[in-house]
Amino acid sequence: MWKEADNKLSRTIEFDDFVQAFGFMSQVALIAEKMDHHPNWSNVYNKVEIVLTTHDAGNTITDKDRKLAKAIDKLLS
Amino acid sequence: MWKEADNKLSRTIEFDDFVQAFGFMSQVALIAEKMDHHPNWSNVYNKVEIVLTTHDAGNTITDKDRKLAKAIDKLLS
Amino acid sequence: MWKEADNKLSRTIEFDDFVQAFGFMSQVALIAEKMDHHPNWSNVYNKVEIVLTTHDAGNTITDKDRKLAKAIDKLLS
Amino acid sequence: MWKEADNKLSRTIEFDDFVQAFGFMSQVALIAEKMDHHPNWSNVYNKVEIVLTTHDAGNTITDKDRKLAKAIDKLLS
Repeated sequence: MWKEADNKLSRTIEFDDFVQAFGFMSQVALIAEKMDHHPNWSNVYNKVEIVLTTHDAGNTITDKDRKLAKAIDKLLS
Repeated sequence: MWKEADNKLSRTIEFDDFVQAFGFMSQVALIAEKMDHHPNWSNVYNKVEIVLTTHDAGNTITDKDRKLAKAIDKLLS
Repeated sequence: MWKEADNKLSRTIEFDDFVQAFGFMSQVALIAEKMDHHPNWSNVYNKVEIVLTTHDAGNTITDKDRKLAKAIDKLLS
Repeated sequence: MWKEADNKLSRTIEFDDFVQAFGFMSQVALIAEKMDHHPNWSNVYNKVEIVLTTHDAGNTITDKDRKLAKAIDKLLS
């Protein structure tokens, strides 16, 4: 589900509505803060786009990104 | 699932963990604020207890409580 | 604080950290859902960018956008 | 501001409205999950009551509780 391009992992998720989308975002926020690794993400209504890259590693994809991506996938499974 | 007693509707929900519980709470918060009808609720780790009553109707159960209860059930279905 | 360009109102806000930024986002989410008018917004760590336009009015700036912008400003004052 | 009684630290905070209260709760949630130490808390409209105790230490007040209390105070300062 994640696309890997330009040294970034990205995934777009579509929910039923804003309530579903923001509930998911709250979960991702908790996980990201705990990992000390935050997404570059955007939302409009029922769509959430998440882009992961590691700023401290010169904006490349690192294990931190893969770990966060996996945790996000688990929320959606 | 909701218990009706003492002029209150109450339901306790158990999630896998705090992330799941708080994601749910964020959704309930959005719905409650939109309805202008707020729960009396508590949380500890993976458990959320919700108590619904209508303060403005002398702390009785009204249609507002039943409507919010139904919307919460829909989130959990 | 809001820029008006290309039929959009936009504002970028910088917080101390992710916790502050996401707390603010949760407040905006509640207000937006209540207004039935949702922002196009993005976040990375302590920065939140909000773009407002009215999709149903052919992506122009309407009173809905101005009202949401004002409510967001109030949160930040 | 925190009361210490019955092996628990507790504090009640009153906000202007639900939006302010839940924005604060989102911040506390992020901090608590990061610390792996979760409050026993309740909310109704603009009021949030937080009770801290350490379950794993036989429900006594530990450094974990004091650290979380301090982080919560910082949010409110």
